[in-house]
Formats: sequence, C-alpha cells, structure tokens
Amino acid sequence: MAGASGNGVKFVKQVMKFVTEGGGYDRLIEKVRIVAAGEGHCMAEMVVGTEHQNRGGTLHGGFTATLVDCISTFALMTHGKGAPGVSVNMNINYLKPAFEGEEIVINANTLRAGKKLAYLSVDIKKKESGDLVATASHIKFMG
Amino acid sequence: MAGASGNGVKFVKQVMKFVTEGGGYDRLIEKVRIVAAGEGHCMAEMVVGTEHQNRGGTLHGGFTATLVDCISTFALMTHGKGAPGVSVNMNINYLKPAFEGEEIVINANTLRAGKKLAYLSVDIKKKESGDLVATASHIKFMG
Amino acid sequence: MAGASGNGVKFVKQVMKFVTEGGGYDRLIEKVRIVAAGEGHCMAEMVVGTEHQNRGGTLHGGFTATLVDCISTFALMTHGKGAPGVSVNMNINYLKPAFEGEEIVINANTLRAGKKLAYLSVDIKKKESGDLVATASHIKFMG
Amino acid sequence: MAGASGNGVKFVKQVMKFVTEGGGYDRLIEKVRIVAAGEGHCMAEMVVGTEHQNRGGTLHGGFTATLVDCISTFALMTHGKGAPGVSVNMNINYLKPAFEGEEIVINANTLRAGKKLAYLSVDIKKKESGDLVATASHIKFMG
Repeated sequence: MAGASGNGVKFVKQVMKFVTEGGGYDRLIEKVRIVAAGEGHCMAEMVVGTEHQNRGGTLHGGFTATLVDCISTFALMTHGKGAPGVSVNMNINYLKPAFEGEEIVINANTLRAGKKLAYLSVDIKKKESGDLVATASHIKFMG
Repeated sequence: MAGASGNGVKFVKQVMKFVTEGGGYDRLIEKVRIVAAGEGHCMAEMVVGTEHQNRGGTLHGGFTATLVDCISTFALMTHGKGAPGVSVNMNINYLKPAFEGEEIVINANTLRAGKKLAYLSVDIKKKESGDLVATASHIKFMG
Repeated sequence: MAGASGNGVKFVKQVMKFVTEGGGYDRLIEKVRIVAAGEGHCMAEMVVGTEHQNRGGTLHGGFTATLVDCISTFALMTHGKGAPGVSVNMNINYLKPAFEGEEIVINANTLRAGKKLAYLSVDIKKKESGDLVATASHIKFMG
Repeated sequence: MAGASGNGVKFVKQVMKFVTEGGGYDRLIEKVRIVAAGEGHCMAEMVVGTEHQNRGGTLHGGFTATLVDCISTFALMTHGKGAPGVSVNMNINYLKPAFEGEEIVINANTLRAGKKLAYLSVDIKKKESGDLVATASHIKFMG
C-alpha cells in the first residue's frame, strides 16, 4: 500500500484529515505538515507554537509523546494493509528542549510489522541544527 | 512541602491553575480533578470525553502520555522544594482501552527524588472496575 | 494454576530447576531463592555476590535486567496455563546501586494476562532498608 | 578520546579486558568481538552459543539486555573523557529471536553526551540477513 512516495503522502494526508476533523484529540496535530510517506516511513514537520508548550516555554513532553504516537501510526499505515493497530508500549527519551518558533522534523520508521505486532521508531530533530529533541519507540498490536 | 494532604491538594490546584491558564499545552488537562496530593503523591480523576479520544473511540495514547507527564510532575512538586524538573524518559504500557463517559483515576507516586534525578510511577485505572488502563514510569532531571 | 501459595512456590522451584540445569543462560540465577509464588505473583531473594557485579562493585545493570526477565516470567507462569511467552519489551529504571553482600528482594506481578499479551511489573528492593534498587515493566507475547 | 577508529578498537579492547577479567558479571561477554569503535560508537559481533540461550533455544532476553548495557557503555567511553557513567534507564524491544550458531552484530551509538546525562541507542541484527533482533535505548548519569 502507498508504495510510491507521492502516493504515500497523499494517503497519509487523507488519514490525517480524517483524524483531525473528527472532533477528537487528534485535532492537536493539525499544524503538522506531512513531507514524505510510504513503505512504512513517514516524515513530518512542525513549527513549535505557544499551544504546544509547557510553562517553561518549551515543547511539552506530552505533546512530544502525541507526535510520536501519531506520526509512527501514519508510518505504519503506509505499510501492509493500512491498519493503525493499538498501542502496547511507548518509550520516549527527551534529549533537548525545543523552543517556540523552532521548526522540528519528525521521522518515523516501521522496524518490523508482523501479523500480530508492529515495532516503530521515531526521532524528532530541530530542522536547522539537526539536534535531537527526542527519540522514541512504539509497539502496536495488530489484532 | 505540602505535607498535609489538604494542603497538598490546595497547592497542586494552584499549580494546575497556573499551567492550564497559560495558553499552552497544559490547557488540555483542565477537566482533570485533583482528589489527593502531598508527600510525593498525586491522585486525580477525569471523565473521558470526545476531546480525549482517537478515531477508534477510545482514550488517545498521546493524551494518556500527557496525563502521565502532568500528574507525575504534580506528585513530584509536592515533594521537597516543589521544583517540576525536566523530562528525561517516559515509558508507558497500554493495557486496556478507556471509552467515552468512563471515569478514570490517575495515581502518581515519587519513587525516588534525589538532588539530580527523580523517578516517578503512574497508573491509570477505570474508577468503576479498577481495571488498569495504563502503567508508566517517568524520570526527571532536577538540574 | 498453582493457586495456593505453597503449590506456587513448588511449581516455580521446578521451573527454575528445569531452566537453570539446562546449560543455558538461566544458570546465572541459580542463587536466587523463591520465597512466594502463585496467582500471577512471584517473590524471590538473593545476596549480591562478586559474580553479579560490575567493575564499580555494584549489581550489574545487565544482571538486574536478567532478574527482571526471569522472575516476571515465573510470576506469569503461575497464572493461567503456565506458558512463559516471548519478550516484546522490557523497561528498567535504575534507582540505587546494590553492593556486594546486600540481600535484595525481587517482586514480580502480573498486571494483565490476556490471550495475546501479558503485562508484568517488577521491583527490586534492598531487604534491610526497603530502598528501591530498580523498577521495571515487561511485556510478553503469548502466541 | 579514542578519535581514530583503530585507536578506538584498541581502547575498547583494553576496557573489555579490564572488565571481563575482574571476576564479575562482565565475564559473560568474553566471546564478544569488538570490530569498530571510536567517537561515541561501538560495533561488536558474537556467535550465539548454548550459554547465551533460554530453554526455548533462543538468545536470552536477559543476555540481550546485558549486551545492550555493555556495548553502549563501551561506545560512551570512546566519547569525551572516557567515563562509563551509571545506568538510569534501559528500554529494550525484542523483534526477532536469534538461534544457536547465528552471528549477531551489536551497534551502539552515543546520541547525546552532556555533562550530566548521556543518551545511547543500540540495535542488534543478524549478520547474515540483517534482520533486527532487538533495538534499545540506554540513559546514563555522568555524575
């Protein structure tokens, strides 16, 4: 599914439209821009805004986790049958703070997608410096 | 700090007012109700609403992570000097889905709060059945 | 299976004999003493010896992980049909060092054991002080 | 420290000799062969033997964790002042079993090494197929 990169982006944008317009929690990622997708991979970009911050003025750890969850799920959905699965475990390492106005790049990869379990990895970097903001793993159950 | 449980609740409610009214990401936890707090512990309750859900109709994994982050930070702030620290690692296990209208109880504990590092644990249960929705650990750097 | 605590201990001791005498990696836990077991729980004790240490003179992080893996698997095997499952994820937080000659207590619990996935938690404490040495979670696939 | 790759290997082999000959737990990695090291990176190889296995005949999850711990610490020691640090958190995802006789390649990288905290990543692959056996992260406190 969604083998060609162009088709992958189109497909993930459709998925994103579906989830962000549902009135649920996924509305929070509406400012995320999908820049590449396909064959188990998804890359997205976002400028850190006030609404993504904690009171310390940096990207909120809960929103970082939300980005990990969503973008890795999009990556997974470009693989195989397009099913999103259900989260089993998410592990996030916080390396550096990201500040308001900074652009971040979220890169998600499908490491293994079996019939029952899928393993995904995510890193979030500052676009300008390439510095790592966070690295994460995400395990999903495919039912 | 905030030794007596009543004072602890009052203190955490002030912290929560400060963070949720800042226009940042913490506005998302405004419906969380603090029911006990003090001596490194914090217990909160919340009814799962449409705004906390994924398109599958269950509590969003990214919001679960947000609850883990926030409530464990509140727990930590009732300990020692009240500093929130900075996230180093967060690990979340997803055991069962929580559905719209279900009330959940978030329990956070400070396992160890050293000068440099604090270790916190969180579990989220369904109030009625006691079933575990998620368990998590959170490590913060105290600077 | 292994409902009564006495039967649970007997059962886990048999499992432990089977694995430690196989010539494989499990020989390393031969000095672990099972003190309680049954209904998804297992408690074990061990005195930290030279052979469990790193060059810094404290319990090796890799052996801590081995204890987490083995004792949580024993806990799981006292639950349901006795199957050990296969590891999916293990997350370990290291809180305090344990020194040579110190006795540690390993406590493992089955948080949820579904048909496909089992979620386990482990904590390791110093027997004398009760101080936490490590906390961990372990997810297994039941096939 | 240990900038040039050749010097890095020499340095890590000296560290490994020091730790494996100490009579402690690190003796278990004596069959690991260091093939590249330097500038925060370490690559090692090993053939899975009977002594590394569980009773299911595959690489033991506790030994996988031991490899993650040791090889990532070697990687860290080729960076900066050569200090090993103390483990804070280790998270391991188990993707595929490795069988007796299979050669595995362990790759460890220093993602960030600050004054207080170091973040490391590890993957373990089968040498022949390139299939991932495990991925992991390791956080150490530098004191």
